[in-house]
Amino acid sequence: MKRHIEEEIFLLKEQVLFMGSLAEEMILLTIKIFIERNDTIAKEVFEREEKVNKLQMEIDEVGVKILALYQPEATDLRTILAATKINSELERVADQTVNIAQTCAYHLLKETPVPSLTEIPRMSSIAQEMIRKSLDAFSKRDTNLANSVLEKDEELDTLKSNVFNQIIGLIKKNPEKAKSFIDLMLISKNLEKIGDHATNISEDVIFMVMGKDIRHHAPVK
Amino acid sequence: MKRHIEEEIFLLKEQVLFMGSLAEEMILLTIKIFIERNDTIAKEVFEREEKVNKLQMEIDEVGVKILALYQPEATDLRTILAATKINSELERVADQTVNIAQTCAYHLLKETPVPSLTEIPRMSSIAQEMIRKSLDAFSKRDTNLANSVLEKDEELDTLKSNVFNQIIGLIKKNPEKAKSFIDLMLISKNLEKIGDHATNISEDVIFMVMGKDIRHHAPVK
Repeated sequence: MKRHIEEEIFLLKEQVLFMGSLAEEMILLTIKIFIERNDTIAKEVFEREEKVNKLQMEIDEVGVKILALYQPEATDLRTILAATKINSELERVADQTVNIAQTCAYHLLKETPVPSLTEIPRMSSIAQEMIRKSLDAFSKRDTNLANSVLEKDEELDTLKSNVFNQIIGLIKKNPEKAKSFIDLMLISKNLEKIGDHATNISEDVIFMVMGKDIRHHAPVK
Repeated sequence: MKRHIEEEIFLLKEQVLFMGSLAEEMILLTIKIFIERNDTIAKEVFEREEKVNKLQMEIDEVGVKILALYQPEATDLRTILAATKINSELERVADQTVNIAQTCAYHLLKETPVPSLTEIPRMSSIAQEMIRKSLDAFSKRDTNLANSVLEKDEELDTLKSNVFNQIIGLIKKNPEKAKSFIDLMLISKNLEKIGDHATNISEDVIFMVMGKDIRHHAPVK
């Protein structure tokens, strides 16, 4: 028997939120690897990546099935399209955490420690908060919450620029540790990208709720 | 009067291909900035970015309208979803070229030249070819061509690793030029990402034509 479309959409949203909780866990795990200098945690990140990849394909499949079977319009259509887009963003968030875990486990933790930068744990915490809030906004259809995520992005960009500037100075003073410093730079770039994905998710939520495309700061029609 | 859905889909595909031609031009322009050390070309990249951003929103809007108006199934539905996904990839390709143009115009070309790496023009040429072929594959619904793009991605990854390894050595020898060398590293990373987007486009084409999701090397069901 055919389910009601509301039920299908509810289940689709649940899957997206579950994927989001995995992506969030991955952010927390990667900063743990970094701070505790414990590369055995990397395995936990890689295991979650497999789950996320599987979920990405399942969610897209469910989305296409609902579109084909129920031919939804208006809000339902926009919700399914938003779920599909958020799905793709979350998979990219997971990819960024995998990159961080690999940088830590394969290079950074094998070298003698370099002075840590306080910006990196701070960036991780902001990025994770942005992802959580953007998913809450999706779950609750809350455009105010989505807008609050957009405002946070600049803070992350500034922190990344600070990291980049400091790193250049550190490398000049300690060129023999260039590789480790560049690793820190790449990690800050990964974290900044997670913020970008949270921004994209928030824009998808606003489109879903209001039917307005606010990307590229387009004037609201 | 309502157009035929075939006509709507034809026009949607044309828009995506036009956006693709802009993205390709942007890749060519950025490598020109880099090789000719001519930062005035950056303006041409930024102008195209505005067009690409506008097109991205238009294409998504058209996609949603076709879905709502015609409630397509099977191949038509997959074509519209693929167009929407490719749209998002192309906008990210354009972003990568803007990053390269900014790195060149705002930093790299203001410093004394550093030894150029032959890998970078080579990477740009491969990335541009991958984008062109993936769009040809989309236009002609050609899965063989799409598969040929997937095979190219490894070459780009290897070149990027070569660049990274060389840069570490160069920085150790000339730490005072760390910033310029890191710029080269970031540019190679941007080019590698363009290859990733071409890969994603090719996977979207295979999904569109065959209805098979080959992402994450999933076994074909």
